[in-house]
Amino acid sequence: MIHKLPTLAHLCKALQQVPYLASKNLYRVATYFLLSDQKKIDSFCLALLAAKRNIILCPICCVWKEREKPCVFCDDQSRDHALICVVETWQELMAIEKTEGYKGLYHVLGGTICPLEGVGPEDLSIDALVKRVQGSTVTEIILATNQTPEGEATAMYVARKLKETGIKVSCLARGMPVGAVLEGLDKLTVYKALAERRLF
Amino acid sequence: MIHKLPTLAHLCKALQQVPYLASKNLYRVATYFLLSDQKKIDSFCLALLAAKRNIILCPICCVWKEREKPCVFCDDQSRDHALICVVETWQELMAIEKTEGYKGLYHVLGGTICPLEGVGPEDLSIDALVKRVQGSTVTEIILATNQTPEGEATAMYVARKLKETGIKVSCLARGMPVGAVLEGLDKLTVYKALAERRLF
Repeated sequence: MIHKLPTLAHLCKALQQVPYLASKNLYRVATYFLLSDQKKIDSFCLALLAAKRNIILCPICCVWKEREKPCVFCDDQSRDHALICVVETWQELMAIEKTEGYKGLYHVLGGTICPLEGVGPEDLSIDALVKRVQGSTVTEIILATNQTPEGEATAMYVARKLKETGIKVSCLARGMPVGAVLEGLDKLTVYKALAERRLF
Repeated sequence: MIHKLPTLAHLCKALQQVPYLASKNLYRVATYFLLSDQKKIDSFCLALLAAKRNIILCPICCVWKEREKPCVFCDDQSRDHALICVVETWQELMAIEKTEGYKGLYHVLGGTICPLEGVGPEDLSIDALVKRVQGSTVTEIILATNQTPEGEATAMYVARKLKETGIKVSCLARGMPVGAVLEGLDKLTVYKALAERRLF
């Protein structure tokens, strides 16, 4: 039926390209927009276009920044400029910021090395990271990639690249999540928690 | 950190209003848009605005239609105009159309009666349905609401409203889904399948 409504089909096609809009919800999202009033649609489009126009990547740490403003991290003198936390994407950065327990700088890789999807090291900001820390006052680099095969492989690659700089490279602790019960955890997590145990 | 990037915060706020975008995926969708090229953003906004401008509800069956074109269902003479299938929303209509097993007309209620959410019968197109079938050539009305408490209550209300028209009112069969094993079904479904059993 949808092919007989070309305008609607076009909207669905545009929505379909947005990730995390499952096809099951596609029609619901389309319905939401069709039932919204014109003002809401206009302001949605304006917000989208404004963000596209004014939000750019910081040339140093690759975090989103307002075009006309200094970077929230790189230009913040209250943060510890000797510490860099390397994350895959902006989303992971937000997760770390939420803890309010980290006051250093960041470096966003832009993803993980994933040959199957055609993403090589040259597609990420790894060389930029090496260049950034070479001869700088940075004393420690924390690799905070995800605990996925791709995340770990990327961390390994980045660590190797950073070796020549002589800077201390660390990574996030692995083990039991807070609130976890041993019985409910997968065996690999239990194994890692055991192998990487710490003094009480 | 997000409050320091007002343009980005504004985009996130606009996205947040779209249903079925869990807050977990919000940043990913924002990232998708920021990483898309300008042309893609423009065409997304154009598709949205065009749909908003050109797609309206058919005044008869309340299904979406192109403003300048006849209704895909009401004006299709190859369909059975004596049969009306009543559905909650457009999404349910699409599910029925996918079966390619129904050739009658539709009537979209626009939701279910849900006092807790402030949706009463007057907010749905129930009166329009009664008016539509009164004195018409319609011989059967199929109530195809969802098997939820709200869906069933709405079907009951619509059925009562239709009683005075004297037209036959039916509803979808209840029972075991195709491919189901008895052991895996909830007891209410098994009970209904048993109670509403048919001759083999």
